[in-house]
Amino acid sequence: MNIFTMVGIFRRILLLRTPLRHLRPHRTLSFAARLSPVDLNAICCSSGQFVASTRKLHVGTDGPKSPPAAGAPERLPFSRVTEEDLAFFRKILPGRTITDPDLVESSNVDWLKSMKDFFSPAGSSEVLLRPQKTEEVSQIIRYCNSRNLAVNPQGGNTGLVGGSVPVYDEIILSTSLMNNILSFDSISGILTCQAGCVLENLSLYLEERDYIMPLDLGAKGSCQIGGNVATNAGGLRLLRYGSLHGTVLGLEVVLADGQVLDCLASLRKDNTGYDLKQLFIGSEGTLGVITAVSILCPRKPKSVNVVFLGCETYEQLLKAFQLCRGMLGEILSAFEFLDSECMRLLNTHLKLPNPISDCPFYIVIETSGSDPKHDAEKLHNFLEEAMASSLVSDGTVATEESKIKALWSMRERVTEALTHDGFTYKYDISLPLEQIYQLVIDMRQHLGGRAKSVVGYGHVMETCTSTSLLPLKTLPFWLPSSHLSMSGRPAVGAALAQSTDWV
Amino acid sequence: MNIFTMVGIFRRILLLRTPLRHLRPHRTLSFAARLSPVDLNAICCSSGQFVASTRKLHVGTDGPKSPPAAGAPERLPFSRVTEEDLAFFRKILPGRTITDPDLVESSNVDWLKSMKDFFSPAGSSEVLLRPQKTEEVSQIIRYCNSRNLAVNPQGGNTGLVGGSVPVYDEIILSTSLMNNILSFDSISGILTCQAGCVLENLSLYLEERDYIMPLDLGAKGSCQIGGNVATNAGGLRLLRYGSLHGTVLGLEVVLADGQVLDCLASLRKDNTGYDLKQLFIGSEGTLGVITAVSILCPRKPKSVNVVFLGCETYEQLLKAFQLCRGMLGEILSAFEFLDSECMRLLNTHLKLPNPISDCPFYIVIETSGSDPKHDAEKLHNFLEEAMASSLVSDGTVATEESKIKALWSMRERVTEALTHDGFTYKYDISLPLEQIYQLVIDMRQHLGGRAKSVVGYGHVMETCTSTSLLPLKTLPFWLPSSHLSMSGRPAVGAALAQSTDWV
Repeated sequence: MNIFTMVGIFRRILLLRTPLRHLRPHRTLSFAARLSPVDLNAICCSSGQFVASTRKLHVGTDGPKSPPAAGAPERLPFSRVTEEDLAFFRKILPGRTITDPDLVESSNVDWLKSMKDFFSPAGSSEVLLRPQKTEEVSQIIRYCNSRNLAVNPQGGNTGLVGGSVPVYDEIILSTSLMNNILSFDSISGILTCQAGCVLENLSLYLEERDYIMPLDLGAKGSCQIGGNVATNAGGLRLLRYGSLHGTVLGLEVVLADGQVLDCLASLRKDNTGYDLKQLFIGSEGTLGVITAVSILCPRKPKSVNVVFLGCETYEQLLKAFQLCRGMLGEILSAFEFLDSECMRLLNTHLKLPNPISDCPFYIVIETSGSDPKHDAEKLHNFLEEAMASSLVSDGTVATEESKIKALWSMRERVTEALTHDGFTYKYDISLPLEQIYQLVIDMRQHLGGRAKSVVGYGHVMETCTSTSLLPLKTLPFWLPSSHLSMSGRPAVGAALAQSTDWV
Repeated sequence: MNIFTMVGIFRRILLLRTPLRHLRPHRTLSFAARLSPVDLNAICCSSGQFVASTRKLHVGTDGPKSPPAAGAPERLPFSRVTEEDLAFFRKILPGRTITDPDLVESSNVDWLKSMKDFFSPAGSSEVLLRPQKTEEVSQIIRYCNSRNLAVNPQGGNTGLVGGSVPVYDEIILSTSLMNNILSFDSISGILTCQAGCVLENLSLYLEERDYIMPLDLGAKGSCQIGGNVATNAGGLRLLRYGSLHGTVLGLEVVLADGQVLDCLASLRKDNTGYDLKQLFIGSEGTLGVITAVSILCPRKPKSVNVVFLGCETYEQLLKAFQLCRGMLGEILSAFEFLDSECMRLLNTHLKLPNPISDCPFYIVIETSGSDPKHDAEKLHNFLEEAMASSLVSDGTVATEESKIKALWSMRERVTEALTHDGFTYKYDISLPLEQIYQLVIDMRQHLGGRAKSVVGYGHVMETCTSTSLLPLKTLPFWLPSSHLSMSGRPAVGAALAQSTDWV
């Protein structure tokens, strides 16, 4: 995406924001009006948790405690937390109003620690609130609204673009203790739970009941379902089970004035009135705090296979994808890729050995089906054809749980490997399939010795995925524009990451 | 659903409507304020086409031309069409501004002719407008807004609950001439087309290119994609490809003031800003007129099988459904049912012979997969098990196109058969799977000799579907309440239909 495209998208967002402000009840209009229309961070961040409409950057009347880094947005004129405020919070959340700086610290810094770099130092929030119930969230938000206090809701804090942490002294509202499963219907597969449930815990709960979550991602061990929904997380199963717009059946949301919006219906198709909950999926908390989720879960497949393949060129990788779609059809559940630089980092920093011989590109393919014999046969036919046409040069297949996990970790732990390599700038962008890897090549050339490594990895899908970028101004360099135009063509929703020693 | 539940839902809708009015730009607020907050018809109708926010019932200053039937909503104080208005329309749409009563007639009456009965006589619109381009729709809507003229957008007019026809003298805005395919990407499967494209035409276009539409319904020969989206049509493939909230990638919509909202992105996942288009899916045109649609189409399956089975009891039918989900898994693409009364009407009025022996209940199962051998094997195993456990008593399988079509018509043409039996009242409702057929039994008992036939048929799904009911007040009788509570349990999205000789 070149700078003009970016500005275009940005303008479009602003246009959308104007009418949407009025979605909030009248009482909160004055509140909503305080939103900065140019808060790109709040719009563009893709994080492990949501950003409430109250979460805005701000300049206190007594000035910011920590001056922002060059390019950081200004602090808006929100109030500062007083002793009276703390007394109120302690009354609602006894023992769950955290002010010990050591305990608040980890919520001020994001997982990649990139924000610490961009907005030096990290967020300087002094209060971490840990509600357990929707009613508590409602009381907190209502109070903060009336007191003009900025709030930063936070889930698993696993976001890779800094959207989950405060920039100044926003109050951190953590959903971590809102981790109860509210109901599960073993006939329909509908799960209803609080927003703070960790994705992996939900998966384990469901697997015991012969179901799975319709989404899966590398951060599953920490990320929370509320954050997944708020950021419209795609993840590794999007190819098979579709987006959260299709699988989320209901939401409970606390609006900016504390009002609880109950859209927690659990109907597969509900045409009674407008489908309001859709607006909150991917709105990054700017319209409210998600407190509970109802989601349609697929049956646990009877047979799962994972294949790890090597390709000589990116073109072969794309051809393998087309062949795979045709031959594996309805059992194809994931198609992911990583390059040899990723492999080097996995070997070096995580001591994960390459399960096959060295290749420029690697593919992870997963199949899920109801008949192990049929699935094996389809997979065999595909591999035979892929080998015969020289699309892949080496590969290994896993059907056992432990080996499947090991192969998946080659893809899932790339981000982790990068954090050991230096400070990481991660661009989670989408481009037409044919073009995206050229971006990695260009970036390597563009940066030369200034980056320790520039890597490419991500989901391969029929069409573009478009996720978020870091705030424009805060990037220490910008992307080359030649290959970055958006289109409706097939794309790799790739993560282009680079690590440096700069900080 | 008893009357209290209905009132509850109704209240909830009103609550939602209040904030949503503000979604429109400021210029149209005065326009929006003219919406009647109690226009149940505009909210609850599920039709083959959309209902614009301008489509409201109204009482002219010179009184309605045709007095409404008892219980019909009042005409709101909209203007009446003048010669000057017609001159304006003729300038924009030369040759496509229809005022010949014989030509307008068919657009005043819905397919089931039920509205003719409820609001005796039918709609009395005197103007039918046939735009070809979005810009023309925009000009018409802008003009009508400024002139305070009521508009009734109409697509295929295949709706079964009267939502697609005027009640008084609303201008009919037909999308029938907006039937161009704008683009199709044969790699990603993304189709972009105008709203007036007939569903079956799109299917034929795609099948030549090795793709299919993600939705299919009995009315496919006439219904239009714009109306499908506006009413969030589920149809026969919902079980496999999910709802339009997941498959529709973009929309172009003309808002109530004529503004064109371009959300016609064709990204599989687009997290740049709010997903505004979602609001229009299922909003029945109350927020705007859909003029173009971008939709993700699945690959054409290499193998399709259809099975027609007979069951002795409704309980056996449900057990067959559970068995089917487990054994057919990822290749199950439809599970539909009809009862023996439906079969009688198909035999009597359409001369369609029963393909198997007489049974109280019939099931249509469709599988779609990528390997004919595997699919046949899965189906064989399922049928063997279903026969062995006496869940089904008779059945026939089709793999050829013509026989598949013949078996499907047993389910798809039930509605048509009903129209030959008398005037039909059709309730397209959803209930927990276990309970829904009791409703048919109760209804038969309740109505006794007053109805010629009371039949039950529809989709069987993991969970409730909830579609629309006819306006409450216009029903000549009301449903028994005992079995009509909504829940998140499995349900049949069934059509309970009854025909009478009354009119």
